[in-house]
Amino acid sequence: MIAIDWGTSSFRAYRLSEQGGVLEKREATLGILAVSDGNFAAALESQVGDWLDDGDAPVLMSGMIGSRQGWKEAPYAACPAGEPEIAAGMVDVNWGEGRRAWIVPGLSCRDESGIPDVLRGEETQLLGVLSDLPRNSAWVCLPGTHSKWARLEDHRIVEFSTHMTGEVFAIMRQHSILGRMMREAQVDEEAFADGVVRARDAGGLLHHLFGVRSAGLFGQLADESSASYLSGLLIGHELAAIPRLSETVYVLASEQLAARYVQALSTCGISALVLDSDGVVKGLFRLSASLPKD
Amino acid sequence: MIAIDWGTSSFRAYRLSEQGGVLEKREATLGILAVSDGNFAAALESQVGDWLDDGDAPVLMSGMIGSRQGWKEAPYAACPAGEPEIAAGMVDVNWGEGRRAWIVPGLSCRDESGIPDVLRGEETQLLGVLSDLPRNSAWVCLPGTHSKWARLEDHRIVEFSTHMTGEVFAIMRQHSILGRMMREAQVDEEAFADGVVRARDAGGLLHHLFGVRSAGLFGQLADESSASYLSGLLIGHELAAIPRLSETVYVLASEQLAARYVQALSTCGISALVLDSDGVVKGLFRLSASLPKD
Repeated sequence: MIAIDWGTSSFRAYRLSEQGGVLEKREATLGILAVSDGNFAAALESQVGDWLDDGDAPVLMSGMIGSRQGWKEAPYAACPAGEPEIAAGMVDVNWGEGRRAWIVPGLSCRDESGIPDVLRGEETQLLGVLSDLPRNSAWVCLPGTHSKWARLEDHRIVEFSTHMTGEVFAIMRQHSILGRMMREAQVDEEAFADGVVRARDAGGLLHHLFGVRSAGLFGQLADESSASYLSGLLIGHELAAIPRLSETVYVLASEQLAARYVQALSTCGISALVLDSDGVVKGLFRLSASLPKD
Repeated sequence: MIAIDWGTSSFRAYRLSEQGGVLEKREATLGILAVSDGNFAAALESQVGDWLDDGDAPVLMSGMIGSRQGWKEAPYAACPAGEPEIAAGMVDVNWGEGRRAWIVPGLSCRDESGIPDVLRGEETQLLGVLSDLPRNSAWVCLPGTHSKWARLEDHRIVEFSTHMTGEVFAIMRQHSILGRMMREAQVDEEAFADGVVRARDAGGLLHHLFGVRSAGLFGQLADESSASYLSGLLIGHELAAIPRLSETVYVLASEQLAARYVQALSTCGISALVLDSDGVVKGLFRLSASLPKD
């Protein structure tokens, strides 16, 4: 089968063996925003057409390709949702002679106030790591521009929440008065931990943010350490917002980002386990077993 | 006397009568960042030199002119501080023959974790409205790019905190994914109130921010209303961070901004009184009585 992770800014394709092993991988800066005229069929053909010429390997895709801005909208499946609900929500696209592909739906949920939340792509990553999680219940953290926290019970995603941690960090650094004092430097783990601890104080995030500046003014925070402090502060606020956080958290991220979350969780007295970040491939392979056999 | 409100981006000068009435007002886009070569003496002379030619009216200045980037640093007076401490912290500058001016110091305080906070300019506004406040205790809110909340007891500023509400609103609107959906429109008071109420939910600001997008995706928030909702959300989080907020809050702001804070406070069941925003002039006049008589 062919597994495709097609996001806003990147395209990754994997040719898998019948056992799910990766035989070949291709990457391109061909995110959905970069596909000219919305001609996704031509884009896909250009990337993996040759993989399909000698057989009818199924093609499964996940990520923003299934959004309103993508190829074809795959409506969100509502939580609680497990593999059956996600598989049932896949939509197919036909793209020329004998070419067919399936798009995995994202997930939605609503909190007690009725405010919706959404994810797209992470549902596939979560399916890919199911076998690494305790069956009864687990918190999985997928940090990033928009961090996702998913609560799994009995291998179903019962609830999740999105936190704009990565994006707020980036724009505060680039566009706010705080960024003016920040100098590029290695991660300062001590300053990072100080930020995490600060997040537990009263005062609120909007006040704590100004503290980055005032601590700098008073020489309590070096310009070289203030980005690390800000990062710890924001991640600390993210952690503080997760309810009933006591057992081990499973972190699904690249090595560098995972290290930050493991440190932040540890600072809060919570243990963490980092999972392989190739969940998408495993998840798409898992879903391929649910495809109609026609 | 001459009262001068000299900030980062603006310059305002007032010629006052002996009773403190405003005889004449001048405004210029001559903030401290716009003064070439740091020649503040020449800048001041160009603006108010003619007011000084036939007498020796004292000149008092407050705002960022007293910061490290200004004319001469007037070190922060530490809270608790009242009029005597602020007056004692004024520093003078001599600027040519017979020309002398005084710069009012800002204030600093530290919270229980030892993180400092600072303000500069607002101390003068606060002195200017003292007579409008109950003597025993009062919360004064000075909203803006960096909102300040000051707690006064016995006409002294005992503590204060800064919240980056206005700046975070502006950069989220201009630079984040949320801004893409926002259309210019009138203030939508209902959406604003929804944002204020949302801030009281669990989940944290970083999560609530993403809700602006997901509520939009689900048609629960119109593009024309999302800026109002975001504004309410941020102001709501600011209010939630103020401890022991029960009695009447005194709001010191321009009419439009004050209206937003009065609505937000009212939504939270707290009454508010808007004070005249010409506190700086009154505060500088009040401080002029403390100048040495030499």
